[in-house]
Amino acid sequence: MFTPRTPRIVAARRLQRRRDRDQSGRFLAEGPQAVREALAAGAVLELFGTPAALERHADLAAQAPELSPVTDDALAALAETVHPQGLVAVCEQNDVPIGEALAKNPRLVAVVAEIRDPGNAGTVLRTADAAGAGMVVFAGDAVDPYNGKCVRSSAGSLFHVDVVRSPLGVVELLQDSGLQVLATSGTGEDDVDSLLDGGQLALPTAWLFGSEAHGLPADLLSAADRRVRVPIYGGAESLNLAAAAAVCLYASARAQR
Amino acid sequence: MFTPRTPRIVAARRLQRRRDRDQSGRFLAEGPQAVREALAAGAVLELFGTPAALERHADLAAQAPELSPVTDDALAALAETVHPQGLVAVCEQNDVPIGEALAKNPRLVAVVAEIRDPGNAGTVLRTADAAGAGMVVFAGDAVDPYNGKCVRSSAGSLFHVDVVRSPLGVVELLQDSGLQVLATSGTGEDDVDSLLDGGQLALPTAWLFGSEAHGLPADLLSAADRRVRVPIYGGAESLNLAAAAAVCLYASARAQR
Repeated sequence: MFTPRTPRIVAARRLQRRRDRDQSGRFLAEGPQAVREALAAGAVLELFGTPAALERHADLAAQAPELSPVTDDALAALAETVHPQGLVAVCEQNDVPIGEALAKNPRLVAVVAEIRDPGNAGTVLRTADAAGAGMVVFAGDAVDPYNGKCVRSSAGSLFHVDVVRSPLGVVELLQDSGLQVLATSGTGEDDVDSLLDGGQLALPTAWLFGSEAHGLPADLLSAADRRVRVPIYGGAESLNLAAAAAVCLYASARAQR
Repeated sequence: MFTPRTPRIVAARRLQRRRDRDQSGRFLAEGPQAVREALAAGAVLELFGTPAALERHADLAAQAPELSPVTDDALAALAETVHPQGLVAVCEQNDVPIGEALAKNPRLVAVVAEIRDPGNAGTVLRTADAAGAGMVVFAGDAVDPYNGKCVRSSAGSLFHVDVVRSPLGVVELLQDSGLQVLATSGTGEDDVDSLLDGGQLALPTAWLFGSEAHGLPADLLSAADRRVRVPIYGGAESLNLAAAAAVCLYASARAQR
């Protein structure tokens, strides 16, 4: 049984660092839900599990191309959460070139631009998937989509949609593919409810989301077709990113039904 | 200047613990944004600040009923974040009895039922405020609304809406006040878009939200007028709580405009 000092565990553990993920093209997915989605997507290279977890999740163990029982200590070394539920998989990164994703003509796209908080980026990915988006772009100096916290926040959606990593300047490419590009901004000239009323959201749409602290970079704001705000009806100054993204993406989903 | 050992600092620091908050009816708000909102709401009893922060935020310092310069160490002892920006206020808890809040006939209400994650509860509070809700109920064994992380996640909204703490069984009381009660559930028989299409969301509404891990308790689900799901258009199993609450509350806001 593998221990924390077994070379394969030591090597897998390095995937907690971005540099090692970038170099190897691999990443870690932990917990039964993420492992199930990774297996379904054919992304798992090796599954590590405690004997108890491998017995409890025999269906998952049976699907793994390579299976390695590990000690509780070794599992804890691989896992980033306090309750990893006994399973960690080494997966192959599955992002696709932007051209390949756009060739499928997605009608709903989310772009996280320079969002460095992994929990926020993963949540937008999950929400975009739920709203029916086909493609999520991590643009510019955004968090690594394979960051452990981003993978966990995405709750499996990392394996459902086309994930793209791109430079910041993607607006023209999106527009050339027939998508209207809507930049979210607290001071946008349009509000999402008016666009929904006006039928504008039925068009194929890419939504741009910036970081909570800084919003979107000025050149993305000006390159977009419209700058759109979520209306604030009460005393709050703004919404948090997850909430704003949910309102925008679901407004599009509603219009595109 | 107060140091970490000054009795007033030691006493204020105890407010990081729920028991001491419950006993004293006080809590801590940190950072200039929260302090500004607390001052505007008349909730501040004493403002602690480093000399640099008090100079930088002279407008806030001028409004404080009691002002105490503190050392950097004392401020760090009071603050729960790594970058507290130099200000922490001792505030008076401002929740109101449920009858008093209902007497104002709010048309939109959010209920967080047994939600123990303070970040989630605070985010729902912020989103409810943004959507124009007049009242947010912390029901049953929910997190303390004055928990530091909940206060921070609410981004000031704790001071904008009527916050109510109540036992879990609030459905009848809400219904008696003329509110339809909609319980969110991944397996609800109604979906939020259909209710919006059907005009149902224009009615005064209380939304019930449960924890991400367990959802709503069965008796709340059955007592509600409807069980409502957010439609999932893609591969995600569900939305996270902040996103689901945003979709539901903004659907109501849209219908009630």
